[in-house]
Amino acid sequence: MNQVLPNFLKQRATLTPNRTALIFEEEEWSFSELYQRVEEVAKKIASLGIKINDSVAILTANRPYTVILIHALQQLGVTAVFLNHRLSANEMAFQLKDSESKILISEVDFAKKLDEIKSLYSGLSMIMIHDMERLDPIQYALLEEFHLNRVCSIMYTSGTTGVPKGVMQTYGNHWWSAIGSSLNLGIKEDDGWLCAVPLFHISGLSILMRSVIYGIPVFLFEHFEEQRINEVLKKGDVTIMSVVSTMLYRLIENLDDSKYHECFRCMLLGGGPAPRPLLEACLEKKIPVFQTYGMTETSSQIVTLSPEDSLLKLGSAGKPLFPSQLKIMDKDIQLPANRPGEIVVKGPNVTVGYLNRKEANDANFADGWFYTGDIGYVDEEGYLFVMDRRSDLIISGGENIYPAEVEEVLMSHPSVVEAGVTGIEDAQWGQIPVGFVVSKASLTIEELINFCKEYLAKYKIPKQIYFVDSLPRNASNKLLRRKLIDFILKDEKDEN
Amino acid sequence: MNQVLPNFLKQRATLTPNRTALIFEEEEWSFSELYQRVEEVAKKIASLGIKINDSVAILTANRPYTVILIHALQQLGVTAVFLNHRLSANEMAFQLKDSESKILISEVDFAKKLDEIKSLYSGLSMIMIHDMERLDPIQYALLEEFHLNRVCSIMYTSGTTGVPKGVMQTYGNHWWSAIGSSLNLGIKEDDGWLCAVPLFHISGLSILMRSVIYGIPVFLFEHFEEQRINEVLKKGDVTIMSVVSTMLYRLIENLDDSKYHECFRCMLLGGGPAPRPLLEACLEKKIPVFQTYGMTETSSQIVTLSPEDSLLKLGSAGKPLFPSQLKIMDKDIQLPANRPGEIVVKGPNVTVGYLNRKEANDANFADGWFYTGDIGYVDEEGYLFVMDRRSDLIISGGENIYPAEVEEVLMSHPSVVEAGVTGIEDAQWGQIPVGFVVSKASLTIEELINFCKEYLAKYKIPKQIYFVDSLPRNASNKLLRRKLIDFILKDEKDEN
Repeated sequence: MNQVLPNFLKQRATLTPNRTALIFEEEEWSFSELYQRVEEVAKKIASLGIKINDSVAILTANRPYTVILIHALQQLGVTAVFLNHRLSANEMAFQLKDSESKILISEVDFAKKLDEIKSLYSGLSMIMIHDMERLDPIQYALLEEFHLNRVCSIMYTSGTTGVPKGVMQTYGNHWWSAIGSSLNLGIKEDDGWLCAVPLFHISGLSILMRSVIYGIPVFLFEHFEEQRINEVLKKGDVTIMSVVSTMLYRLIENLDDSKYHECFRCMLLGGGPAPRPLLEACLEKKIPVFQTYGMTETSSQIVTLSPEDSLLKLGSAGKPLFPSQLKIMDKDIQLPANRPGEIVVKGPNVTVGYLNRKEANDANFADGWFYTGDIGYVDEEGYLFVMDRRSDLIISGGENIYPAEVEEVLMSHPSVVEAGVTGIEDAQWGQIPVGFVVSKASLTIEELINFCKEYLAKYKIPKQIYFVDSLPRNASNKLLRRKLIDFILKDEKDEN
Repeated sequence: MNQVLPNFLKQRATLTPNRTALIFEEEEWSFSELYQRVEEVAKKIASLGIKINDSVAILTANRPYTVILIHALQQLGVTAVFLNHRLSANEMAFQLKDSESKILISEVDFAKKLDEIKSLYSGLSMIMIHDMERLDPIQYALLEEFHLNRVCSIMYTSGTTGVPKGVMQTYGNHWWSAIGSSLNLGIKEDDGWLCAVPLFHISGLSILMRSVIYGIPVFLFEHFEEQRINEVLKKGDVTIMSVVSTMLYRLIENLDDSKYHECFRCMLLGGGPAPRPLLEACLEKKIPVFQTYGMTETSSQIVTLSPEDSLLKLGSAGKPLFPSQLKIMDKDIQLPANRPGEIVVKGPNVTVGYLNRKEANDANFADGWFYTGDIGYVDEEGYLFVMDRRSDLIISGGENIYPAEVEEVLMSHPSVVEAGVTGIEDAQWGQIPVGFVVSKASLTIEELINFCKEYLAKYKIPKQIYFVDSLPRNASNKLLRRKLIDFILKDEKDEN
C-alpha cells in the first residue's frame, strides 16, 4: 500500500481555515492559527537536525503545546514516541533506547523523572519545551503529503512477555480509525470532542487525529475534573467525549439531578464492558453510552456498541466498525457463534506490527489478522462479548497492567522465588493489581513495594502483596493466574 | 495498494440489518432484505458461468432490479460495464466489444435496440432480466472481502480522440469518493439520498455506493418527475439529492411558493457552475445548493462549494474534498493563484486509468496526477473556477457530448468534407450541440441527421446543422471550435 493523502493538518487548514480546532481553558485556536503555530514549531525542531523518519519521544502534559508538538512532528515525517507520564525512569529509559529516539522533548514539570532517566541513559539528548521556544525556525520543506504506510506514532504495551513492545501506528492506521468511527457515529458540523484522556494514549491521540480529519474542535483538559467537565457538557458545545468507567462514575456522581445538553450525543466508553448499574444510571440521565472494545494495536476502537443496544446486549462490546472484521479462533479453527475462543481482528486500523519484534509479530499476525490474545465470543447476531482481556490483562483506571511485567520485577528481587500477579475488583479503579509471592528469606511487604517503585509506574505496583507457600500451576507448570484469587477468598473465609 | 475491506453490502447487512436500504415507489428494502435478494441473484448469475474478474454489461432501467444486479455483480467480483440508455446500437456494440463483456444483461424495454446490437455484434451473449429470474441459483462462494484495487465498474467517456474510452473505477475509487464526500457533507443517522439521475452514470452509481458505505437509504426514481420529487422533498425523509442544473430549474419552477422540509440539507449540483439567478432562486427558497466539479474519471465529486460560499464565490466549484488535491498547470509548470491553466487533480478517488488505452493513459496521467483537459484557475483562498470544460465538452441536460465524436460521425458521411461541432446555450438543456458542415455534393439537413441517428445517441445529434464554405482553423490547421459560433452570430446579424 503506497497510498498518499494530503498532509492532514495543512489540508484541513486550507479547506476550513476558520473552524475551531482546539479549545483549552480560555484559549481557542482555529485550524489556520493552529497550522501557523505548528509550522513554526516544526521548523524549530528541524533546526535541531531532526529529519524525516527519525523518532522523537514526547513527555509533556495534556496541554496545547503538546497538541502543537504532535502535529509539528507530523509535518516533518518524524515518528512520535509517546511516553506514559506514570512510567518509572527505568521503563522510560528502556522505551527511549528501544525506539532509538533521537531526542526527548519534555518540560520542567518532569525534572525529577528526567534526572533519573539521564542517570540511566547517559547518551540521551533532551530538550525542554521552553528552550525549544527560543530556537530560530529554519527554512525547511514540510511534507505536502502523508504516506499512509509511514509510521506516525509509537506507543508501548507489554503483553505476555513482560518486555514492553512498541506498537507502530501508521498515518493509515489513524486515518482508517477515524473513518471507521465516523461511519458508525456520523459526523455533524457542530460536533466537538472532549479530551480528558491522556494524549500519550491512543484514546487521546485518536481524538486529535479525528479533529483534523473531520474538521471539528477538541476541548482539551489537562486533568480529569468532573465538576468542570460536567459544566461544559451541560452547555452544548461538546457533542462527544471519550471516557473509561472510572471517569463516567465520577461524572455521574457529580451530576446530581441535572442533565447534559441535548446536543451531547456520544459518551464513548472504553476499557471493558460497563456494569449494568452504570448503564442504568446513564439511561436514567439520558447519557448515550457507546461501549467500545479496542487497544493500542487497533489505533482506538475496533468494535462499538450503540446506546440502543446497550441494555439489550448487556456486557457486549458491539459490532466491528465498517472497515474492520472480527473472528473467534481456537488455534487454527474458526469457531461458530456463541463458542468462546481467541478474538482475532483485521482492518486497516490495525497496527503494522511491533517495532523490531520479529518473534512477537510472527506470533500475533497471520494473513492480515491480528491475534489479540483476548478471549470472547460472538453471538448469532454478530455482537462481540469479551470474556477475558488478553494475558490476564488488568485494567486499572483505564491504564493497562500486564501481570507478566509486574511479576518480572517482583522476581528480580533477590529474596523472591516465585511471583504471581492478578487484578481484583475495585470500586474506584475498576481493578487493582495484587501480588502473590513465594520468598526464600524474610522480606516485608514494604521492602518489596519500595523495590517495585524503582522499576514500575505507580499504577502498576501491587496494592496488596500476599506471601504464600506456592503458586497454583498447571501440569506444564504454567502459572494459573486466575486461581490466585482463591488465596484471598480463602483468607476472607478464614477470617469469618 | 493491496488494501482489502469487508464486502461492502454484506458488512452493512451485518452491522445494521434493519436500516432501510432502498425505497422505490411503494416498496422498501432493508439492508438485510437487499442482501438476501442480491445473494440469490449473484448465485443465478454464477450459474451462467460468469466468474471473478469477468466483465458483464448492464442495460436496464433505473429500477430496483438494477440496484440488485449491480450489487450482485460486486458479490462475484465481476466488473459491471454500464451502458448509457441513450447510446446508438453502434456505440453500444463498440463498448461491449471493447470491454470484452462476457454477457449483456438487459430487459424487454430495450428490445429494438438489442436487435440492432445483435445485428452488429453476432457473437454477443445476452440475457433478459425476466429470464434470469427463472434461473436456479447455484452453490457459489461469494466474496468475503473487496480488494480496493479491483475494478468495480467501467463507464465510457469520449474525450478529444472521438473514440470512447472505458474509465475503470475500482472499489477503492468508489470507497474514497464516498469518504471524501462524507468528510465534507457529514453523515447523519437520518440521512436519505434521492437518486433521480441514471444509475449508469457515476452520479447515480455513487449514490448506491454511499448508501451501503454510510448505511442510509436511496430513494430511487425511474424518471425525473419534478412534481413527485418535490412532494418527497417536502416530507422530510430525503436529506440530500443529486441534480444537474436542468433538473434544479424544473424543481424550482414546480415548487411555487412552498418550501422543502427543514431536514433537506443538500442539493448537490453537478455539471458546471450554476448561473446567479438560479442560485438566487435557491437562496430565496432556502434550498442549500452545493455546487460540485467532478467527472467519470474522479468517480463523482472532487471539488465542492458549500452553500455559504455559493454567492460569495459565484461561479466557483469550491475546494477539493479532503483526500483530494488540485493544481493548475501550464504544461510542466505549476501556476500560481488566479492564473488559468489545465486543471490537474489527484486523489484515491481518481480512476486507475482507461481500459486498454496506453496512449491515453500516458497522456493523461503523470506522477499520480490526472490531467483533466479542463481549463480553470484557483483563487488565493483555494477556490477553483472552471472556465472551459475539456476538449470543448458540451454538457446537455447533464450528459457529456464530445464534439470530436460527433464530428467523426458527420465526416463519415460520403458527402461531407469537413465538420465542426460546438455547443450553444439553451434555456432547457443548458447547452445543445450544433454542427457546421462543408459538403461536396448536395446534401440536406434531414439526410445528415438521419445518418447521425444510426451512430449516435439522440442527445448527441446536432440540433441544428449549418452548411458552410470552410471551417475556422489555426495555422497548424487545428479546428477552432469556439469560432464556429461566429457563423451563427454573423447569420443573426445578417438577418437583422
